[in-house]
Amino acid sequence: MSLSRIAPDYIRAIAPYIPGKPVSELAREFGLAEESIVKLASNENPLGLPPKARTALEAAVGELARYPDGNAFDLKSAIAAKFGLAQNQLVLGNGSNDVLELAARTFLAPGTSAVFSEYAFAVYPLAVQAVGATPIEVKARDYGHDLDAMLAAIRPDTRIVFIANPNNPTGTLAKPGALLEFLEAVPESVLVVLDEAYTEFLPRELASDSFGWLKRFPNLLVSRTFSKAYGLAGLRVGFAAAHPDVAELMNRVRQPFNVNSLAQAAACGALADDEFLAESVRVNSEGMKQITDALERLGLPYIPSYGNFVTFHVGDAKALNLHFLKNGVIVRPLASYNMPNSLRVSIGLPEENARFIEVLEAVLG
Amino acid sequence: MSLSRIAPDYIRAIAPYIPGKPVSELAREFGLAEESIVKLASNENPLGLPPKARTALEAAVGELARYPDGNAFDLKSAIAAKFGLAQNQLVLGNGSNDVLELAARTFLAPGTSAVFSEYAFAVYPLAVQAVGATPIEVKARDYGHDLDAMLAAIRPDTRIVFIANPNNPTGTLAKPGALLEFLEAVPESVLVVLDEAYTEFLPRELASDSFGWLKRFPNLLVSRTFSKAYGLAGLRVGFAAAHPDVAELMNRVRQPFNVNSLAQAAACGALADDEFLAESVRVNSEGMKQITDALERLGLPYIPSYGNFVTFHVGDAKALNLHFLKNGVIVRPLASYNMPNSLRVSIGLPEENARFIEVLEAVLG
Repeated sequence: MSLSRIAPDYIRAIAPYIPGKPVSELAREFGLAEESIVKLASNENPLGLPPKARTALEAAVGELARYPDGNAFDLKSAIAAKFGLAQNQLVLGNGSNDVLELAARTFLAPGTSAVFSEYAFAVYPLAVQAVGATPIEVKARDYGHDLDAMLAAIRPDTRIVFIANPNNPTGTLAKPGALLEFLEAVPESVLVVLDEAYTEFLPRELASDSFGWLKRFPNLLVSRTFSKAYGLAGLRVGFAAAHPDVAELMNRVRQPFNVNSLAQAAACGALADDEFLAESVRVNSEGMKQITDALERLGLPYIPSYGNFVTFHVGDAKALNLHFLKNGVIVRPLASYNMPNSLRVSIGLPEENARFIEVLEAVLG
Repeated sequence: MSLSRIAPDYIRAIAPYIPGKPVSELAREFGLAEESIVKLASNENPLGLPPKARTALEAAVGELARYPDGNAFDLKSAIAAKFGLAQNQLVLGNGSNDVLELAARTFLAPGTSAVFSEYAFAVYPLAVQAVGATPIEVKARDYGHDLDAMLAAIRPDTRIVFIANPNNPTGTLAKPGALLEFLEAVPESVLVVLDEAYTEFLPRELASDSFGWLKRFPNLLVSRTFSKAYGLAGLRVGFAAAHPDVAELMNRVRQPFNVNSLAQAAACGALADDEFLAESVRVNSEGMKQITDALERLGLPYIPSYGNFVTFHVGDAKALNLHFLKNGVIVRPLASYNMPNSLRVSIGLPEENARFIEVLEAVLG
């Protein structure tokens, strides 16, 4: 007798999240040397750790037998100062995945529903299902969020609307004006979770004043991560900014020591490293051009992207993905996003992008 | 209008976990120098990080812009080899807190119940409440688990029984024979979560063969942590061993990158550092004698403890706690455990224990 049968049906129906293949795993599977592998699968920062994050991290190693500061005083102070927020608006997470899940666990339950877009970040449906709420997936428009349709999909039992902006894995963007109209129209009893994991890559005029909007919309939650432009994916840290009432409730549901000590220290360092952030954005912008130029040259259609990755369409994505793997290049297949003919490639260093292009050219040529 | 009203009632009723006061917080509050403060509040390892964990951690710093290995291949291999387990029996957690919560989120829901003991670890009622299940608290016997009463408390809707062994904050132990009888009597449709966070401090003859028992009891889950004897509290890593079906389901609910890269690396190092573990046990054993001798000398009753901490009874624990704080010694008040007349002190280094004893003697003398 398997004990799994005593779990609720919605738990047993969860399909696990499929992460990007780690370099070490590919090396084991295909007998490749790890240093020969290029990973462009998880929208990571190809520049590595910000120098100031490394310094801060190394200074914190001595105290690792102690529990982290559960209130993350230093990191909350730094975030509040940098973004003009109050500390009681903040919820820290073990990556922004944790923040998104905390929102679901705080506000959803069986008998409630949550709205998100087709092709949106895979964590939304997972987080909704794991608490037994009803997922409402709204058809995308041009691979992006159809905000009007999402508004119309809100039901009396809806508690959360998830918006990824820019969206992963499609790279689409809802412009600030459209988002603001959306927020004005959403019932005030529905929490809008605005996931801005890739916002640092946006040019200023396309970035929403989302933290400023918090003053007007007590039902807005803005989620940010240190895993992308800030280069700390391996350390796991992200945060939410919201109305203090919302933050307070989520902090009660939060595991008291969810953000480890080194992540807290390194995130403080990363926030102070403006030079690294600027360089990350510059490298991404140039790499995006390098890769989309090649896709155009090769006649492969792609979705114009505002993130640090781009999704392109090929005939047989499964076969092409295997070809990439055999050649030591890891990209992301999107079959689990119901895009079986597309692949997503993260923007890497110039030489990594070149390697991706080279393998692509060889197979298409 | 506060949005918190849209959250389920059971979420709004959560009382937050109160962690041990961090050194930095006490320093801020009382204007003390951080280096003058002795923290004996969170059952941490006073020896710091195991040397082999530090080496492993430092080697892993270069890859921190990459996501962690979500399947934790290396760490699962190391745990499986050390404890004679299969990798598919394992669930890794962001500390064992994460593991305990995952068990609750996988198997509990509104309409189900979970059984735990009075004075048991505070995370059990929190995790049960956060998923809207019914908590069944069973009266303790001599501050420890009353296994017969817990067995009798199981209802048809019960899905989990939590057992802390040794228990925190009381330090009590259920002996292997009694536990085995309990497991034989529990209905096979109820998951027994055996939380062995402090098991490394037990003499061999008192330690349960809990991993061995997994073969006989597909409804047993054993939880372990790297935060205590292994000295990695700040990094956040723990694990569960269970039947593969149970582990598989919990791994679907688990956040894919819940254990950060440095925690994975350091835990591999800690598992290999037998010398550090032995020294931790020795220092704890000597410190326990140092502190309990003093309590006896001062006529303060205490609960004999099998962990790395001891709970003692005083008249006005609140006043004594404040006195400790003012003198730069952090211990743990237990009012939130409904033990308002007791304090828990963690075993520290000889000089830290001496400082605790000195402050205690001064106030009682």
